[in-house]
Amino acid sequence: MHADRPIWVRYDLAAIGKSVSPRDFSARPPTLWRYSELLPLSDPAHQISLGEGMTPLLPARRLGAYCGLSDLWIKDESQLPTGSFKSRGMALAVSMAHRFGLHRLAAPTAGNAGGALSAYGARAGMEVFVFMPEDTPTSIQAECQSYGAKVYLVQGLITDCGRIVRQGCDAMDWFDVATLKEPYRIEGKKTMGLELAEQFDWRLPDVILYPTGGGTGLIGMWKAFNELRELGWLRSDKMPRMISVQSDGCAPIVRAFKNRERFCEPWQNPDSTAWGIRVPAAVGDFMILDAIRDSNGCAVAVSESAIAAAAQLAGRLVGVSFCPESAACVLAAQKLLADGLIKPDERIVIFNTGSALKYLSGPQVDLPCLPADKPIDYAAL
Amino acid sequence: MHADRPIWVRYDLAAIGKSVSPRDFSARPPTLWRYSELLPLSDPAHQISLGEGMTPLLPARRLGAYCGLSDLWIKDESQLPTGSFKSRGMALAVSMAHRFGLHRLAAPTAGNAGGALSAYGARAGMEVFVFMPEDTPTSIQAECQSYGAKVYLVQGLITDCGRIVRQGCDAMDWFDVATLKEPYRIEGKKTMGLELAEQFDWRLPDVILYPTGGGTGLIGMWKAFNELRELGWLRSDKMPRMISVQSDGCAPIVRAFKNRERFCEPWQNPDSTAWGIRVPAAVGDFMILDAIRDSNGCAVAVSESAIAAAAQLAGRLVGVSFCPESAACVLAAQKLLADGLIKPDERIVIFNTGSALKYLSGPQVDLPCLPADKPIDYAAL
Repeated sequence: MHADRPIWVRYDLAAIGKSVSPRDFSARPPTLWRYSELLPLSDPAHQISLGEGMTPLLPARRLGAYCGLSDLWIKDESQLPTGSFKSRGMALAVSMAHRFGLHRLAAPTAGNAGGALSAYGARAGMEVFVFMPEDTPTSIQAECQSYGAKVYLVQGLITDCGRIVRQGCDAMDWFDVATLKEPYRIEGKKTMGLELAEQFDWRLPDVILYPTGGGTGLIGMWKAFNELRELGWLRSDKMPRMISVQSDGCAPIVRAFKNRERFCEPWQNPDSTAWGIRVPAAVGDFMILDAIRDSNGCAVAVSESAIAAAAQLAGRLVGVSFCPESAACVLAAQKLLADGLIKPDERIVIFNTGSALKYLSGPQVDLPCLPADKPIDYAAL
Repeated sequence: MHADRPIWVRYDLAAIGKSVSPRDFSARPPTLWRYSELLPLSDPAHQISLGEGMTPLLPARRLGAYCGLSDLWIKDESQLPTGSFKSRGMALAVSMAHRFGLHRLAAPTAGNAGGALSAYGARAGMEVFVFMPEDTPTSIQAECQSYGAKVYLVQGLITDCGRIVRQGCDAMDWFDVATLKEPYRIEGKKTMGLELAEQFDWRLPDVILYPTGGGTGLIGMWKAFNELRELGWLRSDKMPRMISVQSDGCAPIVRAFKNRERFCEPWQNPDSTAWGIRVPAAVGDFMILDAIRDSNGCAVAVSESAIAAAAQLAGRLVGVSFCPESAACVLAAQKLLADGLIKPDERIVIFNTGSALKYLSGPQVDLPCLPADKPIDYAAL
């Protein structure tokens, strides 16, 4: 392991291919644990579970017709525990923490990851510390509190929150479960790709549109598809083009992709109502860019000002509660079609990464607020 | 059909028993449609689906230990589309409306039913009209709107909303999908009981604690259990005791149960933060009371003032977002145990009927008192 470089879990795929076949999965309970051979943990005694996984893959005919796409699908992650895709990664991260005997977990979050960590931490009976930008929706602040987590607002961005966690780990005996700082969230997110493959009968779609903040899901899915290909479980060699979607208020991946850079420059003054993609610098930037390029995909920024209306439109035409990040993907699909980068009859999948219910700002929640530019008195937390 | 009396769907159970066995269900996709033989609709062309059903049944060891119950389970309905159990009934109601060629649906709601009807109506491309008390959480007001439903606040209770819908049906060409006014919501709710049976390997629990407003779920589950018994699919003859849980701020079922009445008197000045059980008079009151009595169950009112703290406690000990109605069930379990009406080692199931996220009152929603039926200008979105 290189310091500050993500750990990458590798499997003995040859052995797995002999012990299990795709047909076996469908007979197992409908959670992400059905793919246990491709996960780092198979012992049920350590599985900290809230019933996560096997989210619906819904045809979106009316939205497709509106956009001019004849084969559009929505993978609705809002039906996971805590209403967002973050549950997949946190189920694995907290289960592995349980496996290793950890009791105090901390993470920076733009919102949904904090809710998921708080829930799984509560399920496991662990202490959880969550740090989020002070303008995070109060619904998520309240959610984390409702699971008994210790929640702190930070006068800054998610990158400031990440620094506060990193610098406090020793003093506070925290385990840092930040995206790609710990190796198992990506394995949990990988199950989005495994489910997609199973739900499409082991044929992958042409295009996947994925809103990209930290990028764990995009990296994880690409890892999943490559593992499936190596296992020989895919009925077709076709791999999907991975499309990273960001807002023009914060688009470091898009800029790096266009400039053919391997790493991103941090985005100055990031601004987006899509909290999950308001990430000025992703730890795994190079892994996101590699996946996009390896897959012949691309990175697209959509207009921040168009996101809210797109969410309303998609909600009305699909019957699903679209978070702003996923509404951005609807805009991206229209843009790519107009630019000739996707074709009208291609099989397109948009991930709805969470419920819009999580973006409500209600009454003020009473929480401590930390400065981003002064040392933190960890002992007083 | 008697006017003003609920229609009761009956099945040819003898024929069903010959055509399918419990073993068949587990191989089908994880939605409530896996039980199609016991539903009024099997044609996939009419199934209006958002991927509903097969919610997790979670062991609640830490909450159980706190309460003194060694075999406590939570059926987490918050993971359904729209975050509540109402999706089950509305999936069936809207599918049957589609089957019968209906296009304009209307319903009164205390909140969650409106969100579910709006989502399924949007999925089906139907017009939906929703009427809710003016103090319904703004999160739900916004939710219904996000699916394109026409939402009206009413200066009154759900019973007033129900009257407004009934009286407008002819003039507005609405189909009234109010609880038990239409016959299929109960068939959808029945699947809570079918899933419970399958998840417990066709042995029913000792006790089911269910928060009771309109009571469709309690009636539906009791119907399911009786159908399963008649089919001979249960491994044990034991039927669960059905416990109806209400708040002491609105407890018409509890009062009628104690007074040995067959029908309820409407509760005067109902008051509860648990919106879903703030129902002063249930259309199916006699059916709820019949199910409770037939099952040797009872009806319990808990202290309104204790509900919020119970929700926090349960969230911390289970890792699930408890709505206030379900937090009331946690209080009821403690009360019944103290009164000797349940035993410490009995298998107890509490339904968490929805996510607490749906109970946030945020900023005022921008069209809450929309006066009339303005057409949606999609081109302007």
